[in-house]
Amino acid sequence: MKKEAGFSGVIAPVLTPFGKDGSPCAESFVEHCQWLMEEGCTGLAPFGTTSEGNSLGLDERMELLEDLVDGGIEPSKLMPGTGACSLGDAVVLSRHAVDLGCGGVLMLPPFYYKAPSEEGLFRFFAEVIEGVGDDRLKIYLYHIPPVAQVGFSLALIGRLIEAFPDTVVGLKDSSGDFSNTQAILAAHAGFEVFPGSEVFLLDGLRKGAVGCISATCNVSAAAIRRVYDNWQGPDADRLQAEITALRKAVQAFPMIAVLKALIAHYRRDPDWARVRPPLVKLPAEEAEKAIRTLAVQNNFALDFAGAG
Amino acid sequence: MKKEAGFSGVIAPVLTPFGKDGSPCAESFVEHCQWLMEEGCTGLAPFGTTSEGNSLGLDERMELLEDLVDGGIEPSKLMPGTGACSLGDAVVLSRHAVDLGCGGVLMLPPFYYKAPSEEGLFRFFAEVIEGVGDDRLKIYLYHIPPVAQVGFSLALIGRLIEAFPDTVVGLKDSSGDFSNTQAILAAHAGFEVFPGSEVFLLDGLRKGAVGCISATCNVSAAAIRRVYDNWQGPDADRLQAEITALRKAVQAFPMIAVLKALIAHYRRDPDWARVRPPLVKLPAEEAEKAIRTLAVQNNFALDFAGAG
Repeated sequence: MKKEAGFSGVIAPVLTPFGKDGSPCAESFVEHCQWLMEEGCTGLAPFGTTSEGNSLGLDERMELLEDLVDGGIEPSKLMPGTGACSLGDAVVLSRHAVDLGCGGVLMLPPFYYKAPSEEGLFRFFAEVIEGVGDDRLKIYLYHIPPVAQVGFSLALIGRLIEAFPDTVVGLKDSSGDFSNTQAILAAHAGFEVFPGSEVFLLDGLRKGAVGCISATCNVSAAAIRRVYDNWQGPDADRLQAEITALRKAVQAFPMIAVLKALIAHYRRDPDWARVRPPLVKLPAEEAEKAIRTLAVQNNFALDFAGAG
Repeated sequence: MKKEAGFSGVIAPVLTPFGKDGSPCAESFVEHCQWLMEEGCTGLAPFGTTSEGNSLGLDERMELLEDLVDGGIEPSKLMPGTGACSLGDAVVLSRHAVDLGCGGVLMLPPFYYKAPSEEGLFRFFAEVIEGVGDDRLKIYLYHIPPVAQVGFSLALIGRLIEAFPDTVVGLKDSSGDFSNTQAILAAHAGFEVFPGSEVFLLDGLRKGAVGCISATCNVSAAAIRRVYDNWQGPDADRLQAEITALRKAVQAFPMIAVLKALIAHYRRDPDWARVRPPLVKLPAEEAEKAIRTLAVQNNFALDFAGAG
């Protein structure tokens, strides 16, 4: 392991499977999470963007989180998404995660009002922290401006770390802008920064990042873990090139839909392909194209024969 | 009245007052809504953007709506915001509104994922309608791309009207683009279209709109109502010019914060100025400037002496 930290390594923002009636399928969810840990994930981040987290109700998220713990996932390895537009909702979800023993929470900023002031965002987090009122709360800021539109400026990050050094401990940078990741790392030694894509894993580790939290971990955790384990070794660049190539091939398709299509295919479970509106399932011909392209060009396959 | 319709006229997207502990103040909320109806509002749209609706939890919204009905507001005059990122949440809120007898609901599209497909948005609304499963449900689409980023294209509006002609009955257009309002009106006779600002009230009525739903109605409903009542009379353009001037003066300040500051001032109730993070209260000097400017330039004042 690179360093002792709350979280480090390869963290999967886990997909959420839905049953025929559209409700989350707890059994498939737990099975997938157990498999991800066996594949080499060092932690799991349910209820993020890839998880269709904001398409779930509060009760659905809390029940699924309890199912994971009941299913044997070590709570300290869990970093559930608990951000919300409503401060009260963010408090409820975060307190629940802390009470379950989760190692951290990954918090979106409130994302309805656009261009909120730094002061308004600071107060939102200050009030969530006060509302939860528990020293065990460890917040990882979820910076994903391409989707949330609202993000964390360097000034805001600095202010939050200064005010809550034992609580605001890290950040997932899904800006897609590695210069932003570098600027955060340069400004805050010891802050646990995770690029939001494994494309930046090796470069990130070399600059002080502690791992990555990436959608693609849902299907390629083992390969990503090899980069993490060997980042200072002679094969690091070659291993990184492989996961970068796979990521680029995957993201040529709508990300969440294609990840679910891949798992549906290799698990022989068509239910896995289901998404919640406003997302749409990958059309069958696109799914077949993705499976074929990845298998031929990236030697990609998932083996569930020995799983769960 | 211009036409017989589910809703028409001057509809206030009502502000939500918060008490010292940050929770909604039901008493002030009901009092404000009663006053707005006395001022000439023909309907109320709680839990929209101006209401900080997405900063409220589901329970908070449902309790406040019940408080309004208990407070004597005719449910048929209520068009609460029931859109949500989670389809299940949108169903819960919409069914509750229908069960209370609300005349309609004003629904945002799911706004977390950006650039969702037309198909995905269509399915979201189709599943909400199926989930509520009640012919009394009347949906007004809430088009506010400057904030929600996700909006309703002309194609999507057409598809929803065609599939659900008795349910999808109108739209609030807060795009700020009157050519969009005109295009919707031209395409769908009988569809109840409300510009999202009284700046477009007279022009809208002349093109077939049925009224307006505007933040500023919280402080100038009576003047806006005069335009609505006299839109075919000789004074229409002069009356419109007055409300346009007031709107422009108000929106020189952050809209929600300044509206609350104005009510706090004229009600002599500083609690009214409170907002929820990520919004911030208008600084005292800005509030004083707004009050002074509007009084001098627009002859603006609120008289609560006879209210409540």
